[in-house]
Amino acid sequence: MPELRKDPVTGRWVIIAVERAMRPSDFKEEEELESNDVTEKCPFCEGHEDRTPPEILAYRKPGTQPNTPGWNVRVIPNKFPALRVEGDLNRRGVGMYDMMNGIGAHEVIIESPNHFDSLETLPLKHVEDILWAFRDRCLDLRKDIRFRYIIIFKNKGKKAGASLSHPHSQLIATPVIPKLAKEELAGAQRYYDYKERCVYCDMIAQEVGDKKRLVIENEEFVVFVPFASIVPFEMWILPKQHSSDYADIKRGQIPYLADALQRSLRMLNKAVPNVPYNFYIHSAPLNNLHLPHYHWHIEIVPRLTHTAGFEWGTGLYINPMPPERAAEFLRKAGEELEK
Amino acid sequence: MPELRKDPVTGRWVIIAVERAMRPSDFKEEEELESNDVTEKCPFCEGHEDRTPPEILAYRKPGTQPNTPGWNVRVIPNKFPALRVEGDLNRRGVGMYDMMNGIGAHEVIIESPNHFDSLETLPLKHVEDILWAFRDRCLDLRKDIRFRYIIIFKNKGKKAGASLSHPHSQLIATPVIPKLAKEELAGAQRYYDYKERCVYCDMIAQEVGDKKRLVIENEEFVVFVPFASIVPFEMWILPKQHSSDYADIKRGQIPYLADALQRSLRMLNKAVPNVPYNFYIHSAPLNNLHLPHYHWHIEIVPRLTHTAGFEWGTGLYINPMPPERAAEFLRKAGEELEK
Repeated sequence: MPELRKDPVTGRWVIIAVERAMRPSDFKEEEELESNDVTEKCPFCEGHEDRTPPEILAYRKPGTQPNTPGWNVRVIPNKFPALRVEGDLNRRGVGMYDMMNGIGAHEVIIESPNHFDSLETLPLKHVEDILWAFRDRCLDLRKDIRFRYIIIFKNKGKKAGASLSHPHSQLIATPVIPKLAKEELAGAQRYYDYKERCVYCDMIAQEVGDKKRLVIENEEFVVFVPFASIVPFEMWILPKQHSSDYADIKRGQIPYLADALQRSLRMLNKAVPNVPYNFYIHSAPLNNLHLPHYHWHIEIVPRLTHTAGFEWGTGLYINPMPPERAAEFLRKAGEELEK
Repeated sequence: MPELRKDPVTGRWVIIAVERAMRPSDFKEEEELESNDVTEKCPFCEGHEDRTPPEILAYRKPGTQPNTPGWNVRVIPNKFPALRVEGDLNRRGVGMYDMMNGIGAHEVIIESPNHFDSLETLPLKHVEDILWAFRDRCLDLRKDIRFRYIIIFKNKGKKAGASLSHPHSQLIATPVIPKLAKEELAGAQRYYDYKERCVYCDMIAQEVGDKKRLVIENEEFVVFVPFASIVPFEMWILPKQHSSDYADIKRGQIPYLADALQRSLRMLNKAVPNVPYNFYIHSAPLNNLHLPHYHWHIEIVPRLTHTAGFEWGTGLYINPMPPERAAEFLRKAGEELEK
């Protein structure tokens, strides 16, 4: 059972994978799979359904059986979960310290049966299915009252932490509200207390108005490079209509989110070919889903720079790419894609 | 002039290097220098003093001139500073956002005239000189009332953000108290309010008492793997005697700190050969140097794991190495070194 341990100074929780019991020699770079046998070995490819734990959800062709070919999006439990779904939290003290069992859910959303697809190249309708799968899993997992937060995230490229190249994202449900979620919620609350407006709604108005950092605007979503971006080409995707809960997304909004997400990633990839990146959805905590001061959004974080001692020691980031310039490069990349 | 921009939600400051004006194509891996001409090209090597900005401080042989050979530790301004020393802050609003000029100091502490030395291999007396240089620079820079915090840090190895392999550390003085410093200060204050004791003093007592995570103990310092380590083989070095200000270190403590730091790094390097790492000194903010609730310390952060979307999106870390196991490996490495 993994453990959740709390730093006694900052209160930050850490997941300690007690049972994996690594040795120092385990920390070396994994070799890349040879590209000729990559699909042969890949557990996420169509036809290899028996190499993963049984599926939790799949959008399949009518008449096909679970855990067989015929799906286009497939959700499975992570074979090496960071948190485990069975058991109770058992919060307890160890000397002066605090800990609990590492209870949670860790799932993999396999985005396509085809190894060489990507969010950038899939048909828009298929991207919509992936976004529906995100929503369906949130709605199901929030019934479990042990969970306080759900984060959906994607690691693309080895430098961004991806260990398998087959297109997939992940979901982790946690029994604590994570540090960064707490910080956003508290900050948004402070702004709301003072202004009686949602800080994200205000940002949307400002970015759509002055356009300097704007990357994409469609009927339902805006994409911009945030004023205080921590890394080059960071982008935030926000629904224009105020909503704090991703799973509350309306049927009519999904095609526009698919468009905004796919175009953002295409522009990024055009501006910086093969860039590794992460993205994740920030949404309201499960015990308080409808908040006037919070606004769900997707953050795209390209992984072009190294974090060094200064960043680790201070939490201050040095971004060598002014956000206005980044937005300019991205818009230009978008224009070239449309040619 | 770099800019300091504030995230309107979380309040986190970011340094935007406006004038470096990178292009997307600038983000590629730098090539390693060939080892046969490495010292030829290195601006930090003895004899190349004219390739750096003029020195701020150097411990030299009697009779040698500034900016010539004859030094063993040399401090220079960073040629590409993250923050600039000239000017005023000019705090201002931009639409709904907040920013100020990127004022600060950014210095490089060249730890040895010899390219192939390291903190692990230098004579202990030389390590002491480096620790004295850290202190001297803190005492000088804190006279500048624009600065609120000083962080001293080291990047060792390319994966830890080092761009030059010549042994060196860095110092950045910032006009804001960085996010992580604020969090530690606030957390330590909360503990003090409740217990009327320093949380770090309590940790020292616990770790020295139960020994499971203890790595080194000498007359003046302890080194342990923290209970809620965020990465494998993380280590904290703390003075046994309560003190919140690194620059307040006593002459009699320096040899013991040199011993604790060098032995920690040797044990780490024995356990995981050539591991890239960062370390940094966490000390009190400049406007409030003597705090009953805060305790200066050094954090050593080996860079063996990738941070991925989950960590970036939540601030929750997954550590695959239980701290007790890490301490065991480190102690064993220490025993082998003594053979």
